[in-house]
Amino acid sequence: MKGKAAENTFNFQVRVYYEDTDAGGVVYHSRYLHFMERARTEWLRSLGFKQCQLMREEEILFAVKKISIDYLRPALFDDILDIRTLIIDRYRVSLDFEQLVTNQSQETICQAQVKIVCLSTTTMKPKIIPAPILSAFN
Amino acid sequence: MKGKAAENTFNFQVRVYYEDTDAGGVVYHSRYLHFMERARTEWLRSLGFKQCQLMREEEILFAVKKISIDYLRPALFDDILDIRTLIIDRYRVSLDFEQLVTNQSQETICQAQVKIVCLSTTTMKPKIIPAPILSAFN
Amino acid sequence: MKGKAAENTFNFQVRVYYEDTDAGGVVYHSRYLHFMERARTEWLRSLGFKQCQLMREEEILFAVKKISIDYLRPALFDDILDIRTLIIDRYRVSLDFEQLVTNQSQETICQAQVKIVCLSTTTMKPKIIPAPILSAFN
Amino acid sequence: MKGKAAENTFNFQVRVYYEDTDAGGVVYHSRYLHFMERARTEWLRSLGFKQCQLMREEEILFAVKKISIDYLRPALFDDILDIRTLIIDRYRVSLDFEQLVTNQSQETICQAQVKIVCLSTTTMKPKIIPAPILSAFN
Repeated sequence: MKGKAAENTFNFQVRVYYEDTDAGGVVYHSRYLHFMERARTEWLRSLGFKQCQLMREEEILFAVKKISIDYLRPALFDDILDIRTLIIDRYRVSLDFEQLVTNQSQETICQAQVKIVCLSTTTMKPKIIPAPILSAFN
Repeated sequence: MKGKAAENTFNFQVRVYYEDTDAGGVVYHSRYLHFMERARTEWLRSLGFKQCQLMREEEILFAVKKISIDYLRPALFDDILDIRTLIIDRYRVSLDFEQLVTNQSQETICQAQVKIVCLSTTTMKPKIIPAPILSAFN
Repeated sequence: MKGKAAENTFNFQVRVYYEDTDAGGVVYHSRYLHFMERARTEWLRSLGFKQCQLMREEEILFAVKKISIDYLRPALFDDILDIRTLIIDRYRVSLDFEQLVTNQSQETICQAQVKIVCLSTTTMKPKIIPAPILSAFN
Repeated sequence: MKGKAAENTFNFQVRVYYEDTDAGGVVYHSRYLHFMERARTEWLRSLGFKQCQLMREEEILFAVKKISIDYLRPALFDDILDIRTLIIDRYRVSLDFEQLVTNQSQETICQAQVKIVCLSTTTMKPKIIPAPILSAFN
């Protein structure tokens, strides 16, 4: 689904499919981490950065360093979820995001703080985020 | 992503995210079953049928009865895959689909025959497919 | 795999399979939430409580309310991971766990605080944890 | 969980967790492909072959080339499933398996024919299966 950026925030929508639900009849809790990563990936893409290229050409990848997530309300099969991503802080090797998931009735489903770290694909050690990426998240 | 129907076929696109890949660097083989189910779900939706409503109001669900899938070529992170779904045969309680996955270079990634059966949500036994659904797949 | 309990802690092992890895060559970050849930499930089971029975007979289910997880080091395909689960706090409707994942070289892979809430399966509202369960986690 | 080999067959058990189920209350259909791959992986391991070593030292990986799977009966949360794997045919670059999943009441859940192909990790083209592996599957 399409995403849309406005200064420092990015909105992205996902549809809930069968694969996302569990026997409790609701979205399985780990699936939100997937939805949130898709949103961050699409934000990067909308800024002109493809992760497969960053791997090959810059030899970097972005990995999740820390997540704190609060689950407020269940999401259901067939729901359309809106994922609003904000950038909170930018560092030399990491980025702090806040991500908010709401359903089509504007109810908050869950909310997360996510720290992403830039790693060298060869050493898997932290590596400085390329300047063009850092400044794109302005 | 958006899907588009034309007589007896439906085209739907998915983006390959990190979550879809494995340590071999390619899309994990079971993920195509997810992509194909999303495509069938969106086809139903485009015909006016929401599965969550069918569950509640008609007390039916569609389950996979049989899949034969041939893997021809790997798909990669960041690829956009096109899933072309055809209906092959319609029966009283089941539907036969063919589903073809191609990448953005028109290379065939995999191809499957999928038999879907209509089940009662209360007994989990086969149940006759509602006539409006059957005739919609014309 | 087998788990083992000692006062207030439970150890459980999982093997890393292809399905758990991503194109970065390491375990995908959301998979640890699955491993941790398996460990909590097996702890409950080792105390004599099967969640499918709790659903049917007590009409309760345990849902994740909050997770904070720190990723310290990647885990790899074929690794055996040890998940050490501690109970930190017990409340009327919720339980606080700490869960620590280490690999076969005793390196810490990740660490999480997890709040689990007991919900009614009919209303999906918080419900008092049955006394036998609460006292079993002694 | 532990697996056990007897001439040309291997038995392996998996537990069904929340993560394996969907909103239909049963195991999601693609999950059986995961269970079956775990069984094949453990069979290889029980014969002395670790796939991470095969990747590094022999520069090969085993990929699924074709699956035909029949779903006969649903499996449920908390079930223990037995996966019985038989080798049907051995070729220069591929292996044909039959895999049968049964529950704790000896009911057949699903049944699959799986063709596995040996690929070069560098070219991703078919490569001859190392003789020790081929002869181990006796």
